[in-house]
Amino acid sequence: MRGPCSAQRGRTAGGEWLWFSALIAVVICKTGDGVELTGLYGRITSPNFPKPYPNDQTITWTITTPIGHRIKIYFTYFNLELSYRCEYDYLKLNSKGTEVAHLCGKESTDTEKAPGDTVFYSLDNKMTVTFRSDYSNEKEFNGFELFYTAEDINECESDTEICDHFCHNYIGGHYCSCRPGFSLHSDKKICTAQ
Amino acid sequence: MRGPCSAQRGRTAGGEWLWFSALIAVVICKTGDGVELTGLYGRITSPNFPKPYPNDQTITWTITTPIGHRIKIYFTYFNLELSYRCEYDYLKLNSKGTEVAHLCGKESTDTEKAPGDTVFYSLDNKMTVTFRSDYSNEKEFNGFELFYTAEDINECESDTEICDHFCHNYIGGHYCSCRPGFSLHSDKKICTAQ
Repeated sequence: MRGPCSAQRGRTAGGEWLWFSALIAVVICKTGDGVELTGLYGRITSPNFPKPYPNDQTITWTITTPIGHRIKIYFTYFNLELSYRCEYDYLKLNSKGTEVAHLCGKESTDTEKAPGDTVFYSLDNKMTVTFRSDYSNEKEFNGFELFYTAEDINECESDTEICDHFCHNYIGGHYCSCRPGFSLHSDKKICTAQ
Repeated sequence: MRGPCSAQRGRTAGGEWLWFSALIAVVICKTGDGVELTGLYGRITSPNFPKPYPNDQTITWTITTPIGHRIKIYFTYFNLELSYRCEYDYLKLNSKGTEVAHLCGKESTDTEKAPGDTVFYSLDNKMTVTFRSDYSNEKEFNGFELFYTAEDINECESDTEICDHFCHNYIGGHYCSCRPGFSLHSDKKICTAQ
């Protein structure tokens, strides 16, 4: 069986880019707790991908990006065992204490959801990805391949009340400014007449 | 008369944010050549803003952001002397050898353009901003206040032919990957069957 770290670093369909991404990505492996990912982008696959995944696996990847960013996740391949409400094999995405997605199968059905072309976003700068396979599968399934990337949160658009006069977004944050004749209060938000 | 460096660092309507931005912004002042700006965001104003600008000024600010970014510019204040085709006082934006904007006045007319709410983008990771006032103005004009910010270029959206199979954007760049059974060619773009 491959440990979670070797699974993360495992083969890719086109392996070369990993060398480049390794220049930025900082990967801390903790066997037992799961895998910590702090790069601005990367790829996660089921163990042995694109070969079928083994039974009885539970792996959690925790992606953490800098404050002021959110994590975008999308799938280029997904085929997990289908079960009622994805109770057997599944992939879960969690952020800020909320279940963002609970996925299984290959195509969505009435009660089960497969990702298809859906793009998923974290609710803050952190997302956990949990893959689980149960003790038995009658058929073989090839698992999943997903890519994640940090995106800037435009605080000026997501919260229009964030500044009294002018809001200026930048990658990783924002700041406020005031019209001529006004000073920015020490709260960095309110404008007061000079 | 204030030199271009003191103008850049000059008073703000709400001055506090400048201390924070100074943590990231790297400002190299060259009196004579103009002002070099390499921060990821910032503010540029006419000399003495919000007071009227002096006559006979020519100042160029050169904004350079990291590769894979473009520069977004927008105005929070603009009032320059109006002249036919903005020949007397003006603000020019140039990028990649192209004139992105040539602005004067307060409101746009048939042959002269004022920025209003228009947002301007650089054509690569560099933009020059040139302010010019001529030797005489019959009235006083308060000049301009603009803000700039580096934005990620999504190469996957701006060039859909950039990757053979999958394109993955990240802040500052992109990379390609292939479907299972294919390898990424050494050109980092083409996928070939294994």
